[in-house]
Amino acid sequence: MRLSCIHEILIGSRDQEKAKCTGEVCLNEACKRGLPCRVECVSNQEAVERSEVIILAIPYKHLDSTMSGLTGFEGKIVISPINPMEKSEFFAYIPPVEGSAALHLKTLLPESTRLCLAFNNISGNRWRDIDQELEYSVAVCGDDAESKRVVMEMIDQISLLKSYDAGPLAMSPVVEGLTPLLNNIAKCNRMKDVGVKFV
Amino acid sequence: MRLSCIHEILIGSRDQEKAKCTGEVCLNEACKRGLPCRVECVSNQEAVERSEVIILAIPYKHLDSTMSGLTGFEGKIVISPINPMEKSEFFAYIPPVEGSAALHLKTLLPESTRLCLAFNNISGNRWRDIDQELEYSVAVCGDDAESKRVVMEMIDQISLLKSYDAGPLAMSPVVEGLTPLLNNIAKCNRMKDVGVKFV
Repeated sequence: MRLSCIHEILIGSRDQEKAKCTGEVCLNEACKRGLPCRVECVSNQEAVERSEVIILAIPYKHLDSTMSGLTGFEGKIVISPINPMEKSEFFAYIPPVEGSAALHLKTLLPESTRLCLAFNNISGNRWRDIDQELEYSVAVCGDDAESKRVVMEMIDQISLLKSYDAGPLAMSPVVEGLTPLLNNIAKCNRMKDVGVKFV
Repeated sequence: MRLSCIHEILIGSRDQEKAKCTGEVCLNEACKRGLPCRVECVSNQEAVERSEVIILAIPYKHLDSTMSGLTGFEGKIVISPINPMEKSEFFAYIPPVEGSAALHLKTLLPESTRLCLAFNNISGNRWRDIDQELEYSVAVCGDDAESKRVVMEMIDQISLLKSYDAGPLAMSPVVEGLTPLLNNIAKCNRMKDVGVKFV
């Protein structure tokens, strides 16, 4: 997987031992391939305090409990890749009353936090496979133009991802809902880890 | 635009003169290019009665008035490409109380009608340009497996379209909502007639 810029990565976790394990796996795999990489494992609170851009890569069901007690989000860029969905016979999009996970998250953050939506439609399996390129489109939503620009630049540095400004945070229900749709397409058409390209 | 099968096309309209004009334009353009084509222009009621597969290619705001008084949908396959959306600064998905245009349409049809969702995410401009191929993915939703198969086969005969079974009609809000998202992506990234591919 190509990376055209080196970022300092902090992996935050409620369980610092778990974060350490994840960090070590990341570092080992990157070093084996000669990729430059800087990873540090810290508590969630330290990750929030020391980061400029915070990616909340957690399942929706853990969102409230993870956010509870965390402080220091003022002025930071927060990215939500969170998709509230459930699986029975098919995958279904089950958003909270606010209309989407991102719109719910907005109520948990200070007003000065610059919340963006991104990475919602890329399968976790594809991120783990660092020997393969990620050739997908990434819809980025948000109400603050400057933070959207920062997030889009970051995305365009990762593998073959291509970012697209997808409008305001009000579009988040569609972007989040696209993930259960892609999961159903995978299931119904015997495919794996289906993603999306805007053409 | 390639077509690997010849269908008999009935263009239905409330205004038969308008249907005739549309039909003549289609026939002329097809004949000029040596494409085989059979098009007949009839009233909406006649189109419903004589067709096996009915594509309701109308704006959402005209759905109720168009359906009012039409009969004979029993057992037929009906395709909804309808996206209820509004435009102010950005495009927004504004579904009816049932959750989507397709789920609303379901309440207007007899129980035996086999309703599918398809063609929602292809721009009208791209359909009009018959010298260009359409290279898009088409999500097909529906609760009846046999009619979904018929619709998917039909789609795969058109240009370079590729159909994907996208699960039950319950997924229709996401597929319909994808269209205003694609419109916003076009607007925000200075693109035209953006479509989608599942990869």
